[in-house]
Amino acid sequence: MRRNERVSTAVIRRLPRYYRHLGELQHKGVVRISSSALGKDMGLTASQIRQDLSCFGEFGQQGYGYKVDVLREEIGEILGVSRGHTVVVLGAGNLGRALIENFKFANNGFQLLAAFDVNDSVGSRVAGVPVYHADQLEEFLQKNRVSVGLLTVPKSAAQTMAQRLVNAGVKGIWNFTNYELSLQDQDVVVESVHFSDSLLTLSYMISQTGEQEDTL
Amino acid sequence: MRRNERVSTAVIRRLPRYYRHLGELQHKGVVRISSSALGKDMGLTASQIRQDLSCFGEFGQQGYGYKVDVLREEIGEILGVSRGHTVVVLGAGNLGRALIENFKFANNGFQLLAAFDVNDSVGSRVAGVPVYHADQLEEFLQKNRVSVGLLTVPKSAAQTMAQRLVNAGVKGIWNFTNYELSLQDQDVVVESVHFSDSLLTLSYMISQTGEQEDTL
Repeated sequence: MRRNERVSTAVIRRLPRYYRHLGELQHKGVVRISSSALGKDMGLTASQIRQDLSCFGEFGQQGYGYKVDVLREEIGEILGVSRGHTVVVLGAGNLGRALIENFKFANNGFQLLAAFDVNDSVGSRVAGVPVYHADQLEEFLQKNRVSVGLLTVPKSAAQTMAQRLVNAGVKGIWNFTNYELSLQDQDVVVESVHFSDSLLTLSYMISQTGEQEDTL
Repeated sequence: MRRNERVSTAVIRRLPRYYRHLGELQHKGVVRISSSALGKDMGLTASQIRQDLSCFGEFGQQGYGYKVDVLREEIGEILGVSRGHTVVVLGAGNLGRALIENFKFANNGFQLLAAFDVNDSVGSRVAGVPVYHADQLEEFLQKNRVSVGLLTVPKSAAQTMAQRLVNAGVKGIWNFTNYELSLQDQDVVVESVHFSDSLLTLSYMISQTGEQEDTL
């Protein structure tokens, strides 16, 4: 597979959507899809789809469209789902537990190894995942290769815990704390989930709808 | 304030980030900021910042930069934070509770009115918010003006509950179910939070880092 190193952030951000959508098509038993049909489902033009995917290689066949399973697998490869990534959860509160119990880590190529907390949950298991005391974090990270730390600790502990993860060699931090981390190690990638960005986008969209109503 | 109706989705998606970031600057006591400093903080160029904000009016002053509080308030206006939006939560499981307890609805212009579920939590309060039985949803929506339904029900109940919200007149659905809703009412806006998109983006980024290491 040919890879273009200068792929734009916008394209990269769309790849997981392709992956997810192709998975749904596969689930529905769809074998082949044209770029226009795929585009229609995803709110993109056929030419945008072709352009996006051309960044990574030759996938489709003129007039035949894309083979759903092949394309999904290739995109999965690009996204790194078969690289054996591992993850630990820091903070086994409501959000941490919700993610441990419901989020399909394995479907996204991540093996969930353990959770860490400082309260009563230490020593228990959540959906089969052991909860250790945060004091044991470094020891655990030394014994286990951990790619990503999922951060759901309180905001006040976010920076400290993130730095401990980085010092112990994790490559990425999935940050749910709504705290803007500033880390020394430039090689560590931080991906923050900001619920408020999503709600404010919704707020904008319903406000626009309201305005249209007002002027009717 | 002048508004351009044809603002691109990309710009709209950036507005909440501006809003959030300006809030942090305000919190730090920053009064004025140049487009280049704001851009540096946000990973955008100064010209991109100027271009984004010019979609909505004249905010900055050449050579003086932006007044942080004024710009934040104006962007908040555009996003609709002072429109008195209201929200109910459907599903008071771990994720629903995590959001009720920790997410700052009010900071984003939303008043959280109630939660609905079908289990033991009915009749209790979560962080002061009453939990009603889902059977009472329509009655509640008739008596209270509700802008948005936040959906954290199991995937199997997602479509039914979303349709009930729409039938009862909500304007927007904040969808955490990872289910692609298909709704009849074109005026209802759906904003879906897909955790997997975020994790796969992180997976891509750490895979890229790994590759660079391999070739060193």
